[in-house]
Amino acid sequence: MVIQMQRAKKITLGTPEAITPVKFSNVNNNLIQGDVTYDTSLIRFKVTASGCVIEMPLDPDEEVFGFGLQLKGFDHRGTKKYLRPNADPVANTGDSHAPVPFYVTTKGYGVYVDTARYASFYCGFGKNKNRENIRNKAVAVTPEELYEKNKTDEITQMVIDIPAAKGVDLYIFEGDSITEIVAGYNQFSGGGCMPSLWGLGMFYRCYTRYTQEEIIKMADYFRENDIPCDMIGLEPGWQESSYSCSYLWDKDRIPDPDSLIKELRNRHYNINLWEHVFVNSTSPIYRPLNKYSGDFEVWQGLVPDFGTKEGVDIFSEYHKTNFIDKGILGFKLDECDGSDYTGSWSYPNCSEFPSGMNGEQMHSMIGNLYQQTILKALGNNRTLSEVRSAGALAAPYPFVLYSDLYEHKDFIRGLVNSGFSGLLWTPEVRHADSKEELIRRVQAVIFSPQAIINGWYIDKAPWIDMRATNEIKGLFEVRMQLVPYIYSAFYQYYKKGIAPVRALVSDYSSDQNTYKIDDEYLFGDSLLVAPILAGETKRTVYLPKGKWYDFWTNQKYKGGYHIMETDTIPVFVKDNSILPLAQPVMYMEEGTQFKLDIKVYGSGGTIILIEDNGMTYDTNYKEYILTGNKDEDEQVILDSSRYCINSVQYF
Amino acid sequence: MVIQMQRAKKITLGTPEAITPVKFSNVNNNLIQGDVTYDTSLIRFKVTASGCVIEMPLDPDEEVFGFGLQLKGFDHRGTKKYLRPNADPVANTGDSHAPVPFYVTTKGYGVYVDTARYASFYCGFGKNKNRENIRNKAVAVTPEELYEKNKTDEITQMVIDIPAAKGVDLYIFEGDSITEIVAGYNQFSGGGCMPSLWGLGMFYRCYTRYTQEEIIKMADYFRENDIPCDMIGLEPGWQESSYSCSYLWDKDRIPDPDSLIKELRNRHYNINLWEHVFVNSTSPIYRPLNKYSGDFEVWQGLVPDFGTKEGVDIFSEYHKTNFIDKGILGFKLDECDGSDYTGSWSYPNCSEFPSGMNGEQMHSMIGNLYQQTILKALGNNRTLSEVRSAGALAAPYPFVLYSDLYEHKDFIRGLVNSGFSGLLWTPEVRHADSKEELIRRVQAVIFSPQAIINGWYIDKAPWIDMRATNEIKGLFEVRMQLVPYIYSAFYQYYKKGIAPVRALVSDYSSDQNTYKIDDEYLFGDSLLVAPILAGETKRTVYLPKGKWYDFWTNQKYKGGYHIMETDTIPVFVKDNSILPLAQPVMYMEEGTQFKLDIKVYGSGGTIILIEDNGMTYDTNYKEYILTGNKDEDEQVILDSSRYCINSVQYF
Repeated sequence: MVIQMQRAKKITLGTPEAITPVKFSNVNNNLIQGDVTYDTSLIRFKVTASGCVIEMPLDPDEEVFGFGLQLKGFDHRGTKKYLRPNADPVANTGDSHAPVPFYVTTKGYGVYVDTARYASFYCGFGKNKNRENIRNKAVAVTPEELYEKNKTDEITQMVIDIPAAKGVDLYIFEGDSITEIVAGYNQFSGGGCMPSLWGLGMFYRCYTRYTQEEIIKMADYFRENDIPCDMIGLEPGWQESSYSCSYLWDKDRIPDPDSLIKELRNRHYNINLWEHVFVNSTSPIYRPLNKYSGDFEVWQGLVPDFGTKEGVDIFSEYHKTNFIDKGILGFKLDECDGSDYTGSWSYPNCSEFPSGMNGEQMHSMIGNLYQQTILKALGNNRTLSEVRSAGALAAPYPFVLYSDLYEHKDFIRGLVNSGFSGLLWTPEVRHADSKEELIRRVQAVIFSPQAIINGWYIDKAPWIDMRATNEIKGLFEVRMQLVPYIYSAFYQYYKKGIAPVRALVSDYSSDQNTYKIDDEYLFGDSLLVAPILAGETKRTVYLPKGKWYDFWTNQKYKGGYHIMETDTIPVFVKDNSILPLAQPVMYMEEGTQFKLDIKVYGSGGTIILIEDNGMTYDTNYKEYILTGNKDEDEQVILDSSRYCINSVQYF
Repeated sequence: MVIQMQRAKKITLGTPEAITPVKFSNVNNNLIQGDVTYDTSLIRFKVTASGCVIEMPLDPDEEVFGFGLQLKGFDHRGTKKYLRPNADPVANTGDSHAPVPFYVTTKGYGVYVDTARYASFYCGFGKNKNRENIRNKAVAVTPEELYEKNKTDEITQMVIDIPAAKGVDLYIFEGDSITEIVAGYNQFSGGGCMPSLWGLGMFYRCYTRYTQEEIIKMADYFRENDIPCDMIGLEPGWQESSYSCSYLWDKDRIPDPDSLIKELRNRHYNINLWEHVFVNSTSPIYRPLNKYSGDFEVWQGLVPDFGTKEGVDIFSEYHKTNFIDKGILGFKLDECDGSDYTGSWSYPNCSEFPSGMNGEQMHSMIGNLYQQTILKALGNNRTLSEVRSAGALAAPYPFVLYSDLYEHKDFIRGLVNSGFSGLLWTPEVRHADSKEELIRRVQAVIFSPQAIINGWYIDKAPWIDMRATNEIKGLFEVRMQLVPYIYSAFYQYYKKGIAPVRALVSDYSSDQNTYKIDDEYLFGDSLLVAPILAGETKRTVYLPKGKWYDFWTNQKYKGGYHIMETDTIPVFVKDNSILPLAQPVMYMEEGTQFKLDIKVYGSGGTIILIEDNGMTYDTNYKEYILTGNKDEDEQVILDSSRYCINSVQYF
C-alpha cells in the first residue's frame, strides 16, 4: 500500500501534565510537521474544577472510530466512551482492556489526546441552542425506541472530558483514508512491531496443572501427528505461587525446568511463560522491588512501579537471567488491566507510586510499561508475546491482546477495531461446546495476528474428544501457508505503520456502506475476511467496489452484498494482487525455507517478501519485490534462502 | 421499634466544596451531637492532584452495606463501588439509579460522605505492608476461582476516592443495629416521608397510546370488576411532545383534559402524570427556563437547573397551575438518571449550569432537586409519586424509585438494599411471559412501598389474557388489607427514620447468618417477606432466632432455615406482635374507614395506628396505640373515625 506523506500537528492546550503516554514512550516527534488542513480555530478548550474539557465540532454525517480495543462498539458517533481500563467490559461504554484516547473520523483526520487519565469522549452531543419549535410526536412502546435518539442531523460536539489535568497536548493526524491516518499515528508511536517469524506460527497453551512430563507429551503430540505448532505456553501452574507471582518454578510440577526448556527447544518449540505483574512475598524480587512499588497490594503482592528505572531494572534483569538467558523468549503478561465487573480486583485509582503516578495513570500505562520492561529483558531477541492491557502509542510492542471474555461476535469486533489504534488482538480459542463451534473459532483465529489455542483449563486439546483433528490440522496448515504473507504485512506495519488487520472503513473510508461493518476485516493488503460466527452457517458479506476472488474456490465476485453459506470461513482476495502461499511447515527456525505456491489474481500485483534471520532486531531485512503479471509469467522470480517458488497460478 | 438516642458526629476534612447534597437539602444539624465512640484518629485524609482520599480501617470480619439502590450487589466488603448515577446498571459496580455515598457496617457505625462527585469506595483493599513470605499455591482452573480472592483475614482499608474535591464533610452515625444507624441518617436527612393514604393503594399505569376514552374504560374496568385501584398513571402519550417534554396535553389522544381529570376523580382515582426533566422547545416554559439551564441539551431539550431558585420557580409554578390546581397529585419523574449502558443519553458530566454545578454534580443531585421542585408545586398536598433517580439524604421525599430493568432477583435485591440508604423502591410489574411469572411478580410488589402495575407498553392489563384475574384481584385485596399496617410503618419512618423495608441484617446486625441474605426483607416491624422468584416454586427461608408464624396459615416456625414450597409468597409474622388487617376497600379517600381484623401473635404486641386526613401536610396525626394480649382480650380497643374493629384473633 502506498502511503502519502504524513500530515500531523501538535496543539498544546493549557498546561499538560508531567505524566502522559508520550512522556513514557519513544515517539517520533519529527513526524509532527504541523501542516494539517483541520481548522484548529474550531477547537474550544477550558480548564474546570474537575480537570479540562475540549470541544470539537462533528459534522452531521461524520462517523467516529477508534478508542482502542472496543469489543462492544464500532461506530461511536452519538455515544459516550469512558476510557477506563479493565478486563471485563460488558457493554458499549468505553471500558476496555486497552482503551486508547485516539479516534479517527470519516472526515479525514484523527485526534490523539495525550492523557493517562480516564477521559470521557462524548461523540456528538448537542449544545443548548435556543431553538425554534421542534416537536417530537413519536410515542415509543419499547425501551429501544426510546433511547436510540442520540443521533441528529445537526452539527454536534465531540466533547473530551479529562479529569484532574489542567491541560493536554492534542495531536491531529490527517490522511486520505483512515488507514493512512492511523499509519501516521503508528509511525509517531515509533512504528509497528516486527515480530519474530516463529511468533506467526501456531501457539498452544497447556493446561495449567500439567506436569513437566505432560507438557512434553503435549509437545510430542503435535510432532507425532504432523500438526504444526511453533509455541508452547505454560499457564500459572508453572509457578510456585501465582496469585500473586513468585516467578519461581513449581518444583512439584516442574522438577527440572532447565531440562524442560531444553527438551522443548530440541523439539523446535518456543516457550511462553504466563505471569502477571503482582509480586508475591516469596519472590526473590519482592524485597528489592518493595520501595519501587505502589502503596496498595494486589493479591497480597507488590505492584511494581515501572515508571521508575529501578523498578524496570530489577524486574527485567531478573527475567533476563532466569528466563531469557535460558532460552525462553515469550511471555503472557496477564492481569495488568484490573477489574470493574468481575470481583473488582487490582489497586485503587488513588494508589500512589514512587514515580509520581497515581493508580489511574498507572492503570492506563501499566500495560505498555510492562511490555517495555519485558522487551528490555529480551534485548536483541524478537518475540510475539501476549499482554492483557495496552494503552496509547503501543504499536511498537510485539505483544498481542487477549481476553477472558469469549463472545465470538465481540472477539471478531475486537479484530476489526484493533487496527484503528495501533493494537494487535487475538480471538483466542479456548473451549467449544461443539465441533462446529470449535471449527468456527479456529477459522477466525488463524486469520488473526496470533493463532492461539489456549487450553489453560482443559487437560486435553479441545479437538481430540470432538473428533475434529483432521479439520483443525487442516486449518493450522492454512495458517502456515499464510505466514510469508502475514510476515510481509507486519513488515509494512513496521516500516509504514499500516496495521496488518483493518476494518473495511479503514481502507474504504469514503464508502458509506462500510461504516457499520464490524464483522469483516482486511487481513494484510490482499485479503478480506468475513468469519461466520460460532452457531451460524451463513452470513452476508459486503465487498467494496471492484472484483474479488473467493480464496478457497477462486470464484469471482463483484463488489456488493453476497450471502455466503459455507462450512469454511469466507475469505476474498482483492483483484490485481499476488498471494505467496507457503507449503506448510511444522515450525519455523532461522533456516526455514518456504516453498511458495504463488497465486496471481486479475492483472497481478506486487508484494514485498522479507528475508531476515526472523529472530533478532540486529538482522538485515532483505526485501524481495514479488511481482506477478498474467501476461508476463517470467516476472515471478525469487532468489532467496528463505523462499523458493513451487508453483505459479493465475486467476 | 424503640430507637436509642442518636449518636452522630461531623468531621470536616480539608476544604469541602460549595456544592454538596447537604447544601441542597434541609438537614437536621441538631442531631449531630458529636458523641460517637468511633476512634476518629484512625481516619487518614489527603488531598491529591485528582481530588481527595480518605482511608478508614475495616476489621477482618466487618461487612459493609449500603451505597444506595444497589441492584447487583449486597455485602460490599472486598469490592469496589463507583457511585455513578445511571439507569441501567449491568453488574456489581456501584452504578445505580440512586447511588448514595453512605454505608453502614456490622461494627455499629455508618459513614455519610457529603459529596456530589462520583466517589469510589474500595471496601477493604490492602496496603503494601512489607510481608513475610505468604505463598499462594492454589492453581485455579476457572475465572471464578481466580478472581474471588479479594477477601482476606487481615485489616484492610475502606478507601474513599473523591474526584475534584479538596475536602469533604464526613458524618458518622452510630447505633446498636444497622436499623438504628440508618434511622439516625434518615432523621438527619429530615425524617422519612409521610405519603398520602391513597399512595399506598393499588396503582395502574395505562398503555402509553391510550386515548381519553380508553383511559376511562380502563378506570371503569377496575370498578366494574371490584378490583381495588387507587391510582391511574398516564405514560408519555399524554404529552404532545415527550422526548423532549412539552408538558402539554396531546389533544389528538386527550381532546379534553379537564374532563378526563374530572371523570377519573369522580371515579375516586388519583392521577399520576409521566414526565421527564428535559424541556422541549414547544413547551411554554422553554423560553423562560432557557437561561436557567445547562449548556448541553438532551433530546434537543433544555436541562433546567434546579440548583437555581428561578429554575425551580418556573418549573414548579407551571406544574402547580396546569396540573396540581386541576387535581393531579402524582407524577412519575423519568429519565433523571442518565445512561452509561443503553445509548449513552443525557448531558455530559462536564456540562455547566448557572448554579455553578457541573454535569457530574447535577447527575448526582438532579433526582433530589427534581423531587423538591415538584414538592414545591404540590404544596400542602401529600403524594406518593415516582422518580427514577435519587441521591443522598432523600428520605423526606415521598417518591418511589423504579427501573426499566426487569430481572426479578435484582428487583427483590433492590427492596432489600433500599432501606440502607433512605430510599424507597418498587419492583414494579410490567409484562410477564406466563401466568406463574405474573403472579410471582405481583406477590412481591404488593409487599413493597408502592404496588404498581405498569402497563405502559401493553394495551390490556396483563392478567386478562392470562386468565389470572381472580388470583391478581386476590393479591390486590391482600395489599388493601395491609394498608393500615403499612401506613403505620411509614409513620414510624416519618417520626423516627426507621425504614419501612429493611434487610434482615438491618434489625439482626449481630446475626452473621443474615450477612448474605439479599432476598428476604422485613416489611414494617412485624412481617418478614421472602418472595419466590418468577420461575421458581420453592426457596430456603432464613428466620432469625425466635418464633415466627406463617402469615397465610398461622403455622408456627422456629428460627433457622426452612424450605418453603408454595404457590403463595412466604411471609412470616414475628412472635409477640399485633397485625391490623383491613377489610379490603376499592380505593381510599379522606373519609375511608377501615374495618380491622386484628391478629394477635404470641403474647401480643403493640402498633401505633394513625388517624389523620391522609391527604395533606397540615393534618393532625392522632396516634392510636393498639395493644393485643392473649390473656386480656378486652385490651383491643379502638375509637376512631378511620378504624373500627371487625374481629380479633389470637395465635
